[in-house]
Amino acid sequence: MLRHLVSIDDLSLAEIRDLFAHADRFSADPRGFADTCRGMIAASLFFEPSTRTRLSFESAMLRLGGGVITAAELASSSATKGESLADTVRVVGGTYADVIVLRHPSEGAARLAELYSPIPVINAGDGSHEHPTQTLCDLYNLHVERGHIEGLDVVLAGDLKYSRTVHSFAYALARFGANIVCVPQTGFEMPEYVVQRMREEFGVEPVRADARRLGSLASQSDAVYLTPQKPHQLSLFTDARGWEVENVDAVYMTRPQTERFEAEDRPVDNYLRLEKRSMAAESLRDAVVMHPLPRRDEISSEIDSDPRSIYFKQAARGVPIRMAILAMLMGKIEAGAGERVPAKDSHPVHVGPNPCPNPTCISRTEPRHVTPRFTLAARSPMRAHCAYCSRELRFRFVGCSTTRHFHEPDSTALRKVRPDHLVFLSDAAAAEALAFEPAAGVRAASECPDSEVARG
Amino acid sequence: MLRHLVSIDDLSLAEIRDLFAHADRFSADPRGFADTCRGMIAASLFFEPSTRTRLSFESAMLRLGGGVITAAELASSSATKGESLADTVRVVGGTYADVIVLRHPSEGAARLAELYSPIPVINAGDGSHEHPTQTLCDLYNLHVERGHIEGLDVVLAGDLKYSRTVHSFAYALARFGANIVCVPQTGFEMPEYVVQRMREEFGVEPVRADARRLGSLASQSDAVYLTPQKPHQLSLFTDARGWEVENVDAVYMTRPQTERFEAEDRPVDNYLRLEKRSMAAESLRDAVVMHPLPRRDEISSEIDSDPRSIYFKQAARGVPIRMAILAMLMGKIEAGAGERVPAKDSHPVHVGPNPCPNPTCISRTEPRHVTPRFTLAARSPMRAHCAYCSRELRFRFVGCSTTRHFHEPDSTALRKVRPDHLVFLSDAAAAEALAFEPAAGVRAASECPDSEVARG
Amino acid sequence: MLRHLVSIDDLSLAEIRDLFAHADRFSADPRGFADTCRGMIAASLFFEPSTRTRLSFESAMLRLGGGVITAAELASSSATKGESLADTVRVVGGTYADVIVLRHPSEGAARLAELYSPIPVINAGDGSHEHPTQTLCDLYNLHVERGHIEGLDVVLAGDLKYSRTVHSFAYALARFGANIVCVPQTGFEMPEYVVQRMREEFGVEPVRADARRLGSLASQSDAVYLTPQKPHQLSLFTDARGWEVENVDAVYMTRPQTERFEAEDRPVDNYLRLEKRSMAAESLRDAVVMHPLPRRDEISSEIDSDPRSIYFKQAARGVPIRMAILAMLMGKIEAGAGERVPAKDSHPVHVGPNPCPNPTCISRTEPRHVTPRFTLAARSPMRAHCAYCSRELRFRFVGCSTTRHFHEPDSTALRKVRPDHLVFLSDAAAAEALAFEPAAGVRAASECPDSEVARG
Repeated sequence: MLRHLVSIDDLSLAEIRDLFAHADRFSADPRGFADTCRGMIAASLFFEPSTRTRLSFESAMLRLGGGVITAAELASSSATKGESLADTVRVVGGTYADVIVLRHPSEGAARLAELYSPIPVINAGDGSHEHPTQTLCDLYNLHVERGHIEGLDVVLAGDLKYSRTVHSFAYALARFGANIVCVPQTGFEMPEYVVQRMREEFGVEPVRADARRLGSLASQSDAVYLTPQKPHQLSLFTDARGWEVENVDAVYMTRPQTERFEAEDRPVDNYLRLEKRSMAAESLRDAVVMHPLPRRDEISSEIDSDPRSIYFKQAARGVPIRMAILAMLMGKIEAGAGERVPAKDSHPVHVGPNPCPNPTCISRTEPRHVTPRFTLAARSPMRAHCAYCSRELRFRFVGCSTTRHFHEPDSTALRKVRPDHLVFLSDAAAAEALAFEPAAGVRAASECPDSEVARG
Repeated sequence: MLRHLVSIDDLSLAEIRDLFAHADRFSADPRGFADTCRGMIAASLFFEPSTRTRLSFESAMLRLGGGVITAAELASSSATKGESLADTVRVVGGTYADVIVLRHPSEGAARLAELYSPIPVINAGDGSHEHPTQTLCDLYNLHVERGHIEGLDVVLAGDLKYSRTVHSFAYALARFGANIVCVPQTGFEMPEYVVQRMREEFGVEPVRADARRLGSLASQSDAVYLTPQKPHQLSLFTDARGWEVENVDAVYMTRPQTERFEAEDRPVDNYLRLEKRSMAAESLRDAVVMHPLPRRDEISSEIDSDPRSIYFKQAARGVPIRMAILAMLMGKIEAGAGERVPAKDSHPVHVGPNPCPNPTCISRTEPRHVTPRFTLAARSPMRAHCAYCSRELRFRFVGCSTTRHFHEPDSTALRKVRPDHLVFLSDAAAAEALAFEPAAGVRAASECPDSEVARG
Repeated sequence: MLRHLVSIDDLSLAEIRDLFAHADRFSADPRGFADTCRGMIAASLFFEPSTRTRLSFESAMLRLGGGVITAAELASSSATKGESLADTVRVVGGTYADVIVLRHPSEGAARLAELYSPIPVINAGDGSHEHPTQTLCDLYNLHVERGHIEGLDVVLAGDLKYSRTVHSFAYALARFGANIVCVPQTGFEMPEYVVQRMREEFGVEPVRADARRLGSLASQSDAVYLTPQKPHQLSLFTDARGWEVENVDAVYMTRPQTERFEAEDRPVDNYLRLEKRSMAAESLRDAVVMHPLPRRDEISSEIDSDPRSIYFKQAARGVPIRMAILAMLMGKIEAGAGERVPAKDSHPVHVGPNPCPNPTCISRTEPRHVTPRFTLAARSPMRAHCAYCSRELRFRFVGCSTTRHFHEPDSTALRKVRPDHLVFLSDAAAAEALAFEPAAGVRAASECPDSEVARG
């Protein structure tokens, strides 16, 4: 069966653990696997530059004995002749290559590519959405340095608002049962939707943290402790000052994601900085220091030679873990035998406009040859996500394309509608425009002044 | 003997058929030939971006076990230090590589490269001139899908005016004895010089076509039927409505070549479009749909899953056919043993200015280290082509560099002049400037008022 | 032990001779060494484009059976996320690759990279500083064409002022004991600091040359003869007209380095040109013609087919010599067994501002994560060079960071100061600012009006 890697969620925990074991082998003898993928070709399709990620993948493929074809600056050239992404992956996936490594500025690009590609697609970053091999690499580093992930105490520090890397890492830590201490730059706290997803999917609860033992690193910040343990368990341990941070296993530092700042964000004057002084804190005695790189000034070069600083090793380990992913997707190694993550069902939007509200979603930036799709998150009240960029859809009503009736999102009638027949409607006027009639009990058709006007 | 592939005409029919047979082998087991060119290197020299073509060649070379060095954006970098193309191919052809894949915006660039390169040169597109591996790929698709090419009825649809691909394909079809139904976008008809070359070289005759059975595709267009059969044979079959289009074997759709439009061309509003409805025409029941890609909107995605749509397969087959070409030019496989296409004799222009009228010919865009050259098309009246870009030279008189006399183009005296001694003169003034005297019987010297003035 | 190639001086003469022998083997059978570096990877890190150099290295690595990962346009992409060179080489040197080929616009970049990289670094050009593989290639050509280098008479012609290539070549020729005839374009004479270094390091003496036998090439120029022979030996041979140029072994022509011209330089109207006429000079009868390429018009294409013109062969030989370098640095071949060039001791500048006066030195263009360093050239008077770009430091006083005293550069007290404790001070005010006191006998503190003011 054709496998892809679009999100870290596409891999089961068993598969991830097996990938780690393979990466260990590759790491022990990086030049010893030059026949594993002999005769195979990876296509690096980079629609935005990311030299480090590209080189890491290309090195991994070469170390496996495969070949690489590279399009490092696709945006400019393909734009000229205006080919759709769906067409590009169908062509490149034809005979050109055996695996596609895709980097794209639009969220959901890899998910779209996966639908069209005849060969495995690896997401090497799609806008601010996912970058699963970076997350795998981060987890793999904890695995190598600590031997396990469950139960570790990991500090996430710096820009916790905009860093895609840190969100993906946080979900993955929660999934593996690690605890997180958030030490955000003021104004760059972990967004509520991230915490909520962690709560919903992994039972994670945030607690106030007492971070005095973290020393100067946490002095400006209100630390929060996120743990997959149940709230009543937590209450046994936490006193009025909050959960006490004792021995940290890893500090994961991030740079300010200036390029993603929104209009209201100001340049950061006083960004957190790891230096000799901050690393002297008692609780960090055994903590490894991680950073997804590139760093700017948030880690002082004075701790580069500190044995706890593993950020360069961390980057280096990106090669063996990517070797493992490549080899697995090309069927050259086994991982998580028997265990497979079932793909989420996604359904096409045949009627009405694209309900995805994300302007940089691939379903909006590249509508040609592409049908908008969604996944259902809940039936009552109905909630759905864009199948490409995972953003929650916004709608006021839901219609059925067979009955041509529309309903309130919490209507029990919706439970019987087949997903393919669901139509997401922004308001009553939109329903009118598509000639949908209000179902019995729909309040809006008569009550909503907007739709009155639209009718009048 | 060193072989190059600059034009499809450089290959005999027997060689092409053998290349198809090799491509069949490569296609059946794309990863099974990884030792064929081990130790060899292809240099991708792209003076304008063409990612798809480049990746296709590089994949082919890697599949053969060879290596690739790539200069994907040569224009910008080499321009800085201003190296001539002749020098670049001499350097890269030194020890850097074993074959050069050249893409260049100037017509005739590959022909020039061939003159200087110590290793085989493959033309991967030279301006609007030739792109022989695309043509080979198109022919190969017909061969795979239909088993033969001779006698097929192939519809060429869309922009038949500016599409280089379509002109080359048309010549090749005629050479193989296939029939062509032209269904042009209005205003983008096949140019007369293309039809004339088909007439002169392959005895092709254009006939009015009755395209009613082609359905909506041909509804806006005056179809023309081009067939390598003799006119008197045709008259037996054609009634007043024209040759009846019955069962089409292939529809070859092209996009509007907007980037080549001339000043008088308007944006196309109502471009031909292949969609479900048009593919329902009776005569297209068994027709495969081809497109050189990238497509824009001229093929609706609604027919992507139609089994007759082979355009993605068509692109994929570019790899095995390019493997065949690369392997042949590097001497790793045999093709058309015994049969060789004799290279056209070309002669240097030592005296006077460059007679090529094409401003984007490589002999004009890059005059350094390059001697203009020509091939003789006819002796009486004398006609000649630029040996680089194939454009017909424009001249009023022809001189002999030994006698310093000049003649009318239809003078019998010219038959005795050695080609190296021919001098093409735009008018009598040009002859004067080079100190040529009119031969006996030249009307112009006395009759042309311009030259009088020049003398006076 | 980890070796790098940052400067040609990093190689002993014995090592260079052994590299030549290996290059001879590679040259004789370029496709016969495809297993030498199997499983190894070279990373091409080009912070400015140089297609020819890059392709030459990549070809060499592929010919050795290794793989290549390429970042051809690093400047633009990395700049976005602002990574320091020190970090880049630590990451890429982690597991990505086994050797780094580095091109950078700042002088000293490769020297900096060498300090941080866990794998060998090859300097493929750092600003106007060094390009050691070009020099090796030039020497290798003399070795191949002449069988030896010592005692050869080599004409260096054209822009001897700005051409980095020509300076490096000149040092190397002197080191090997060859004689140089400088035939500069007027206004582009060999700079005095180059001649001085040749005098200091290799005992080279410049003599006026009688270049009449050089013919038209030298007609506009005052030729100078540089020879490693002792002055008293020279006086035996030189008459009033200067040293007579007899049989030249090689003419090394260079293009005007327009891109390095300074404000006062004018476009060159009448640049030297090698053509049939100039090559007819008696003394050039057996001279090979060399050029580092790309050429513009300084070598006429009319001599391209002259057997003495070896510039295309010269470029081609860049591949086998680079194969030798790559294989040596990756430990696959032995060179100069036993003989090693001791690395120059370099010392960090911990106190005060960076004393390097070169604004395009890497220590200035990229100060993050980098400590300025220097090498000591002489103790009394003290002279020192920037350890990165080799530029001589400018200072008025030298302090000791332990005693906090500062001294005149010729003070005997300085001889006892440990190099790590040396502090270079631009003037007395700078010394004040760092709270240094004048040592006994320092004139400036009281005598220098500037420092008076600064104190007052």
